[in-house]
Amino acid sequence: MEIPTFDDVLAARARIAEHVHVTPVMTSSYINALVGAELFFKCENLQKAGAFKARGASNAVFGLSDAQAAKGVATHSSGNHGTCLSYAAGQRGIPCTVVMPRTAPQAKKDAVRGYGGRVVECEPSTSSREAVFAEVVAASGAEFVHPYNDPRVIAGQATCSMELTEQVEGLDAVVAPIGGGGMISGTCLALSHLAPGVKIYAAEPKQADDAARSFKAGHIIADDAPETVADGLKVPLKELTWHFVQRHVSDILTAEEDEIVEAMKLIWKRMKLVVEPSSAVPLAVILKNRALFRGKRIGLIVTGGNVDLDKLPWM
Amino acid sequence: MEIPTFDDVLAARARIAEHVHVTPVMTSSYINALVGAELFFKCENLQKAGAFKARGASNAVFGLSDAQAAKGVATHSSGNHGTCLSYAAGQRGIPCTVVMPRTAPQAKKDAVRGYGGRVVECEPSTSSREAVFAEVVAASGAEFVHPYNDPRVIAGQATCSMELTEQVEGLDAVVAPIGGGGMISGTCLALSHLAPGVKIYAAEPKQADDAARSFKAGHIIADDAPETVADGLKVPLKELTWHFVQRHVSDILTAEEDEIVEAMKLIWKRMKLVVEPSSAVPLAVILKNRALFRGKRIGLIVTGGNVDLDKLPWM
Repeated sequence: MEIPTFDDVLAARARIAEHVHVTPVMTSSYINALVGAELFFKCENLQKAGAFKARGASNAVFGLSDAQAAKGVATHSSGNHGTCLSYAAGQRGIPCTVVMPRTAPQAKKDAVRGYGGRVVECEPSTSSREAVFAEVVAASGAEFVHPYNDPRVIAGQATCSMELTEQVEGLDAVVAPIGGGGMISGTCLALSHLAPGVKIYAAEPKQADDAARSFKAGHIIADDAPETVADGLKVPLKELTWHFVQRHVSDILTAEEDEIVEAMKLIWKRMKLVVEPSSAVPLAVILKNRALFRGKRIGLIVTGGNVDLDKLPWM
Repeated sequence: MEIPTFDDVLAARARIAEHVHVTPVMTSSYINALVGAELFFKCENLQKAGAFKARGASNAVFGLSDAQAAKGVATHSSGNHGTCLSYAAGQRGIPCTVVMPRTAPQAKKDAVRGYGGRVVECEPSTSSREAVFAEVVAASGAEFVHPYNDPRVIAGQATCSMELTEQVEGLDAVVAPIGGGGMISGTCLALSHLAPGVKIYAAEPKQADDAARSFKAGHIIADDAPETVADGLKVPLKELTWHFVQRHVSDILTAEEDEIVEAMKLIWKRMKLVVEPSSAVPLAVILKNRALFRGKRIGLIVTGGNVDLDKLPWM
């Protein structure tokens, strides 16, 4: 297992600078008053391809040798990682294949194709996905870029919190959503080096709380297909992200489905930002644990803004 | 009729600086490619109280003498002006009364009250509104701040395009929505002084195209209660806004209802910004008149982001 270092983060930052945005940090005086704290929203919904995953994907793609790159990249993801890998590959002008269940939303397939990537469909089961993916890699020699259990990806995601420490002084804590743990691991990697006094909290849907239970148990617990509105957070921790979580995370806080949707609507209504449900989990856990955060300066990672506008969770 | 001057704009800017945001300018490479031009979105949806009208309202409120201010301000508006006047009055700590039809959406009444203002209901007719409003003013001595036909309001709105010229170099044109004409008049006032070579286009719903017809006819035409999804743009021009429109506007372009909704969804989807239907009319007319705008650098005024999330036009 190769653990990424802070030098990898610095290299990632230089490597991806031309291909991703330094996203803005936004605030809401209304929400600050409601929480009784100062909240700083790091807006990765305004990132290229609409999600922080453009960072890790770009770092992986632009770190390849020309010979590797010529064979392209591949992944399995029905979420933002597939779209963002397609974006990054398009930026470099190399092939990208994303294996996706045939049942995945049409919008997700269109998003991959919109950036020039190829979608290969599998059946909606782990065995089918693995078999189809193995065929794709065997046929093309493409480089596998895992959505989060990959040191290149984690180093790329770490550039987000690195920027945040430059944009906001005197943070007491950072709260980020946790699914597979790529963003949280990047946050741990950046902050443990740059601002070790800043507490790191992970925010997770109660209905997909495998990371919270792993954290308590001291080993990885993986659930089979949890259901939550925060569809970016269904995947389990893996060894590399577990490495960071167990060392640097102060706590993993959970929120109920209705609390997540309420927090999402609050961000849309008051901040005029389109954020996906996963991105609202940090605000949901802060609203639920106000005593813990009162009077503090808190960074929140708004991980993405890719939602189906025709199927909003309150419709 | 008192015509505001550029000195009034400079005074407004200094007066309101503490109470409004310098809003960001955002871009979308996807939309630029779609249009074949460079578009710069001036995000007044991220303004205090969610609309550019916080500028004009703040200028009116903070320009009052202490004696006038003590009696408060009043207006009739079921839209953003009422909310923004309440916001500005709250900032100064003076009373604000907004006369609103009893049939106005609860969310609009709540928004006024949320900033400390008082809502007085009238029947949904012009005669009732005028009678109730006259009573309010007679009883309180409050200063009437018209939503747009007021030099203080126009000078305040002008600070928006003034900022835009500082934020984006080399603009060829600015496109702003037109309802009563307050924003367009402010745009004319600022640009005719600062950047007289920049063309000014007004964007209007075809279903409420009284300004476009006025522009062609050479005199004000007022419609009786037009119906459009762009509910901020139903009101007619008045003498002060007509003064600016006839002198400085290059053309008034119109868009159909479905084109407005499509442009709105495009901004939500690609830019991750919650904008109200009125704010999407500029993009709608640009998409409809691509040849006119091809290759140009165009500023768009995104006028506000106050929408009812439970009643989106595509639901």
